[in-house]
Amino acid sequence: MATAEILYGGETQKAVENFPISGERVPIQVIKWQARIKGAAAAVNAELGKLDGEIARKIQDAAKAIAAGEHDEQFPIDVFQTGSGTSTNMNVNEVISALTGGAAHRNDHVNMGQSSNDTFPSAVHLAALDDATNKLLPALAQLEASLAAKATEFHDVVKSGRTHLMDAVPVTLGQEFAGYAAQVRLGAKRVANALPQVGQIPLGGTATGTGLNTPAEFAPKVRDLLKADSGLDLIAPPEDPFEAQANRDALVELSGALKVVAVSLTKIAQDIALMGSGPRAGIGELFLPELQKGSSIMPGKVNPVLPEVVLQVSAQVIGNDAAITIGGLQGQFELNVRVPLIARNLLQSIHLLSTASVAFAEKCIDGVQANKRGTDASAGATLATATALNEAIGYDKATEIVKKATASGEPLRDVAIAEGVDPELYDSTIDLRRIAAGNQG
Amino acid sequence: MATAEILYGGETQKAVENFPISGERVPIQVIKWQARIKGAAAAVNAELGKLDGEIARKIQDAAKAIAAGEHDEQFPIDVFQTGSGTSTNMNVNEVISALTGGAAHRNDHVNMGQSSNDTFPSAVHLAALDDATNKLLPALAQLEASLAAKATEFHDVVKSGRTHLMDAVPVTLGQEFAGYAAQVRLGAKRVANALPQVGQIPLGGTATGTGLNTPAEFAPKVRDLLKADSGLDLIAPPEDPFEAQANRDALVELSGALKVVAVSLTKIAQDIALMGSGPRAGIGELFLPELQKGSSIMPGKVNPVLPEVVLQVSAQVIGNDAAITIGGLQGQFELNVRVPLIARNLLQSIHLLSTASVAFAEKCIDGVQANKRGTDASAGATLATATALNEAIGYDKATEIVKKATASGEPLRDVAIAEGVDPELYDSTIDLRRIAAGNQG
Amino acid sequence: MATAEILYGGETQKAVENFPISGERVPIQVIKWQARIKGAAAAVNAELGKLDGEIARKIQDAAKAIAAGEHDEQFPIDVFQTGSGTSTNMNVNEVISALTGGAAHRNDHVNMGQSSNDTFPSAVHLAALDDATNKLLPALAQLEASLAAKATEFHDVVKSGRTHLMDAVPVTLGQEFAGYAAQVRLGAKRVANALPQVGQIPLGGTATGTGLNTPAEFAPKVRDLLKADSGLDLIAPPEDPFEAQANRDALVELSGALKVVAVSLTKIAQDIALMGSGPRAGIGELFLPELQKGSSIMPGKVNPVLPEVVLQVSAQVIGNDAAITIGGLQGQFELNVRVPLIARNLLQSIHLLSTASVAFAEKCIDGVQANKRGTDASAGATLATATALNEAIGYDKATEIVKKATASGEPLRDVAIAEGVDPELYDSTIDLRRIAAGNQG
Amino acid sequence: MATAEILYGGETQKAVENFPISGERVPIQVIKWQARIKGAAAAVNAELGKLDGEIARKIQDAAKAIAAGEHDEQFPIDVFQTGSGTSTNMNVNEVISALTGGAAHRNDHVNMGQSSNDTFPSAVHLAALDDATNKLLPALAQLEASLAAKATEFHDVVKSGRTHLMDAVPVTLGQEFAGYAAQVRLGAKRVANALPQVGQIPLGGTATGTGLNTPAEFAPKVRDLLKADSGLDLIAPPEDPFEAQANRDALVELSGALKVVAVSLTKIAQDIALMGSGPRAGIGELFLPELQKGSSIMPGKVNPVLPEVVLQVSAQVIGNDAAITIGGLQGQFELNVRVPLIARNLLQSIHLLSTASVAFAEKCIDGVQANKRGTDASAGATLATATALNEAIGYDKATEIVKKATASGEPLRDVAIAEGVDPELYDSTIDLRRIAAGNQG
Repeated sequence: MATAEILYGGETQKAVENFPISGERVPIQVIKWQARIKGAAAAVNAELGKLDGEIARKIQDAAKAIAAGEHDEQFPIDVFQTGSGTSTNMNVNEVISALTGGAAHRNDHVNMGQSSNDTFPSAVHLAALDDATNKLLPALAQLEASLAAKATEFHDVVKSGRTHLMDAVPVTLGQEFAGYAAQVRLGAKRVANALPQVGQIPLGGTATGTGLNTPAEFAPKVRDLLKADSGLDLIAPPEDPFEAQANRDALVELSGALKVVAVSLTKIAQDIALMGSGPRAGIGELFLPELQKGSSIMPGKVNPVLPEVVLQVSAQVIGNDAAITIGGLQGQFELNVRVPLIARNLLQSIHLLSTASVAFAEKCIDGVQANKRGTDASAGATLATATALNEAIGYDKATEIVKKATASGEPLRDVAIAEGVDPELYDSTIDLRRIAAGNQG
Repeated sequence: MATAEILYGGETQKAVENFPISGERVPIQVIKWQARIKGAAAAVNAELGKLDGEIARKIQDAAKAIAAGEHDEQFPIDVFQTGSGTSTNMNVNEVISALTGGAAHRNDHVNMGQSSNDTFPSAVHLAALDDATNKLLPALAQLEASLAAKATEFHDVVKSGRTHLMDAVPVTLGQEFAGYAAQVRLGAKRVANALPQVGQIPLGGTATGTGLNTPAEFAPKVRDLLKADSGLDLIAPPEDPFEAQANRDALVELSGALKVVAVSLTKIAQDIALMGSGPRAGIGELFLPELQKGSSIMPGKVNPVLPEVVLQVSAQVIGNDAAITIGGLQGQFELNVRVPLIARNLLQSIHLLSTASVAFAEKCIDGVQANKRGTDASAGATLATATALNEAIGYDKATEIVKKATASGEPLRDVAIAEGVDPELYDSTIDLRRIAAGNQG
Repeated sequence: MATAEILYGGETQKAVENFPISGERVPIQVIKWQARIKGAAAAVNAELGKLDGEIARKIQDAAKAIAAGEHDEQFPIDVFQTGSGTSTNMNVNEVISALTGGAAHRNDHVNMGQSSNDTFPSAVHLAALDDATNKLLPALAQLEASLAAKATEFHDVVKSGRTHLMDAVPVTLGQEFAGYAAQVRLGAKRVANALPQVGQIPLGGTATGTGLNTPAEFAPKVRDLLKADSGLDLIAPPEDPFEAQANRDALVELSGALKVVAVSLTKIAQDIALMGSGPRAGIGELFLPELQKGSSIMPGKVNPVLPEVVLQVSAQVIGNDAAITIGGLQGQFELNVRVPLIARNLLQSIHLLSTASVAFAEKCIDGVQANKRGTDASAGATLATATALNEAIGYDKATEIVKKATASGEPLRDVAIAEGVDPELYDSTIDLRRIAAGNQG
Repeated sequence: MATAEILYGGETQKAVENFPISGERVPIQVIKWQARIKGAAAAVNAELGKLDGEIARKIQDAAKAIAAGEHDEQFPIDVFQTGSGTSTNMNVNEVISALTGGAAHRNDHVNMGQSSNDTFPSAVHLAALDDATNKLLPALAQLEASLAAKATEFHDVVKSGRTHLMDAVPVTLGQEFAGYAAQVRLGAKRVANALPQVGQIPLGGTATGTGLNTPAEFAPKVRDLLKADSGLDLIAPPEDPFEAQANRDALVELSGALKVVAVSLTKIAQDIALMGSGPRAGIGELFLPELQKGSSIMPGKVNPVLPEVVLQVSAQVIGNDAAITIGGLQGQFELNVRVPLIARNLLQSIHLLSTASVAFAEKCIDGVQANKRGTDASAGATLATATALNEAIGYDKATEIVKKATASGEPLRDVAIAEGVDPELYDSTIDLRRIAAGNQG
């Protein structure tokens, strides 16, 4: 249920006026995690006897409503704002205070035990952990499964291998797709490897990491509540409270993992677009699903639009990583104050990779067909099959045969036999399916 | 006036379904420039006798309404879409066709003489040229003027220079701000230097640069109309039609210029934050305007929020440049198909630098005050003033004096005189105001 | 002639010990330009009556010998050193002093009128200006000429155009190479546009930009001498002395221009590798010169090794630009202290682009041959020629014909006539050579 | 012992002529690991009965000599060469063949069971794994230990905290250094997390991943030998042989981890330079060891040269990561052909971070002293100590007091008492040492 009236107060209003920059708000997931933290903090403060139980309950109710998305429009501050996210923290404090009918004071009660400096980056970490865990990893798993299914389907489709873009010894389309599946699987592992560090949140450090004004039991109890509520088991205390507040290195690390995923997806999407190229004047080894008209002027043209989406998303993720890296570089003393920038880019990257992976799987990979005419042609054409003769006749002799075949345009078999290779040896050695199977055949 | 019913057609609908990626639409400026191009194209096609005058007029009216922002909600396609922007070109074609009541066929009439491949990148170039010319350059001029005004105001405020962050020979705050103003002025020149290349649009090349299906007079006439309507005098034919369609290098170049501006603004914002640091335990040479509470836990804290916005915007622009660079790298054969990606990042960078420059000027620089207590203290403290003695007593002797003063903590003058420097020589040489004036004094 | 004994002194020795980092020295061009500046400074100081004429002559002689490369081994300091290049400046001062037999004091005479803070970045600017002017621009001109010659040679070679990697309306190989030539020409212009800013040197500002200890006539006179000696007419005073010392933005700008060149070369090299792919299972429209064996296992394989060099050099230049950008971001107050880093990367990028452009021209482009069998096949295969029918039969009808031809694999002409297109109309419209000529035919 | 005569053959000579690009050779570690692989391969091939035992022994001896650095000058090929490293692989084959007096044929024997496509990237992975394990991780451990020792030494040095560069609640210098130590420790963990993937080598895949011409037992046996010889326990088979040959993602991943380390070191070096700033007109909380003269014009100036080295190295590592990322993006089909580029940048980054970390530890951190006058002054100055009053008097009242103190310049205590705070409450609450201890006190 949306609220119509304005619940936020003066500091929010000032921030709206001070930051007319991008027109883009702080990612709503961050707001929701700020609210969840404040709800849990109120419960813990009440338990510790520092906050009246009635006020705590009201804060918890308000926080829950925000986390449920009931007040999204109450957080109008631009994402390009003060680098600590203080404006947004105050915005959340004000809205919760208003939702309690003023029963809870925005600083003394709602913000109790917290500072923007620990609570805002904690909310960013948790939003990233949540989205990576619950959106990105499943999306990558779906993409991997789609690629693996095609690897099975294409198990027997022999084609020319290509290195340096040049004809090489034969492979199967199934081997290529199994490689893509493995690459996505490795990418998911890279993301997963970064998450334990992201799960370490600075909560409890308050202004500078010392934990001033907060009992030592506060943060562990809040983390336990959040963990229980969200199921995010990686929520953990920081390696060091000062490191955790002064730096956002774990977010730089996660973004770096996303960058590797983007690199992987670029390779896969580019290969698939190349193999789908043609249909008549290109590589022509795959048919991609036709989704829409490809040209406003060339009739009947169909383009690899999903690979292009993946390629653009990947470029964006790499760009976002550059922005995050610079933000990470600029921490000073007790606080990194580029947190909203980092949050914006990181959460955007997670979102883009998630949606693009699913769309790529469902709208492209799942419908990809082998162009058997193309794969047969390329398999038969590559002179690199001569490699299989190396053991029998040596690299230098095989080179001579390939050069003659290249120059004359004649079939490799004819040239080999003319050069003295025993026809039986040739036929038993040059078996494309067996060559493609390599030493696993 | 907003339109309520859906005007777009099947290809748009397919594209909406095919690209559920970011939730962010193609920048509306690109849509508006697509419409302007189509309006001008219709006029020219009628003039050339290729299009019925009545249909042309209807297309022009529809295009004008779109350019005026009357149908913004009719362009729902995600910006992460086919890399040629074909979906958006078809979207514009469909909406214009609908606005003519179907009188104009979306391809044969609205798209006449065009291909997505020339019209979409042309629209992106023109949107960038427009925003850079009419938003960014004025914003930089305003920021430069604000800095220059402070340079005048601070003309006599002597302070310690700093190199390697260490105390150096004195300068004035005015010299520093004049340097900042010059830096912004140079930045504007860098942006302006890139615009002639951006003004070169591939329009007229149609599908692959050959201009198939379009008379040679078409593009020059359309450019003339667009130039006359917009006042953008840099609109020009491309150096080479094939280069112009296959590459988006001019956009990569403009983004590179924006990156240098971001580098400049980072230096300026960082310096100002450092000079405003304290108020008691920092450098403390400037007072920044107080805009809002700086901490949810530390009472009375005020932070350099506008410099932080500028620093985050600058990091974003550098990240966007990385994304644009990768997009630029990936053109193949007759077309670069990362255009929506490039457009998104480039127009965002222009917008962010524009708004941040204005906000920085108005909400920070214009209200900055010299902290005279701080500047006097730093000017008096720096032992680097001893440099002025070099000519009279030599570098080696001066070094000895400075080392003794550093070790003992005594005033430089006392040590110098104890070391045999003539007091009169000292006093005539060590005049901070004159030292700061240097050889311009 | 190499000198055997060690001429440098204690500060150099200390720096060698302090910076055991990369094993890579400061680029020798920077050393040589430091020497040239010191030679010219001595001449001017003598002319201004500040330096004994005999000492000045000795300094000039020593500087000339260093600039001539006679003492390269006397500059052993690591390039990763103090960020102002002070160690290298002192190294040059010491060696010159030694070469004068001690007649000139390293600071009071050799360094007269200078500070590391103005002379070192000036030397870097001049080295970059020199190499860009005298190495890179000629190299790009050579590459452009090679591409343009091929454009002429390939003027009549019709082939399939390709957009989104998919078959598109025909073009000529000559059109493509003319586009590449134009792209390189535009790249050279981008580099040239950055050079006037690089030519602005901070010399004369001494320690912090004020020019303390240096007469106002000093810098103009030194610049005049350097300009006369080197023929580098772009040597100029800075827009503002404080800006010029505190920032290295002009170098960031030049690197940004190099980045665009790298983007351009990537596109060209990638296209050429793609067109050379095969020879039997790829695109197969070009034959690249055979330079060396392409595989240690696959006999007779030939790879596009020069395009791969260009692609790797381009990636390096983009990486170097990232390093330079970060260096540019980190200036503080009166000085940027990332100058050696910036110099290393910038001069390396200039060098790599120069050598790679020449090698690409001489060892690849000049020997490239059209694979006529391949181009004829692709030209004949592309169904996008149907675009030429749009005007006569409309986009929708043409789409229908292309779809039928795609599905059946039949020739376009047969399907078109079966669908009612007049054979005469077809034959007069579908003329590949004329289609490729487009509206320039 | 160095060899004088030329041992390499024709393919090497051609490659030297073909690639006159950078003047920089392939990193020698890669050559040495190529040799180690070839030695182990010969042993295994003999064991498998594919290679004469005598020839195998000769290959092993030659390989051992190369790995020991006895023939470094025999590998003259530029690092910017064919993207598969084929030239370097052939160079190693030729030199080993020559060292066996021709007994071993360069391809049929030395290269037996291998292709450039599997052996060259394997050598790069192993060189990176080796250097990261045996140079970088120990260097980071040393730096961490130095920082941790200072954390203990500075345990009781209270100073002003700083967030947004503004005075914040007090912390200790020890807390800050403990944070730095933790940050370096986390960085080492990030590097270590990437190494298992780097340890997966494509050896055994030969030309395209199929393992053609190589028995399935070959690669496991070679890996076992290499593991036993080197002690690098992470050497492992790839997740998938096609993924492993077509992509260098594991190297991109490792570079990404190095980038995070560079981000961390930037923060630490920048903080230390800032705290050492002054000595009189800066932050002035640390004394850095004096290593060398800081200025050629300002007598007695000392600069933070080691932090500047670290900052420049970090920028370089980030730039190298950009180059590596682009190289990683450009794999196609069965092979990534940007391997020499990636190797160059990755091994350089590992080297730079290793040497810079050790130099930073030994020449800067180990000698850093607290500037007690500075830390006492900043601790006493910060008004943010008022935060400790929040619980007793509320955030709003505390804000009022701080604002009055800021405006008047009066001590916080005086203002607080004038505003009605009980002096006893004030004195028991505002205890800097206890405030800095926070909730750990």
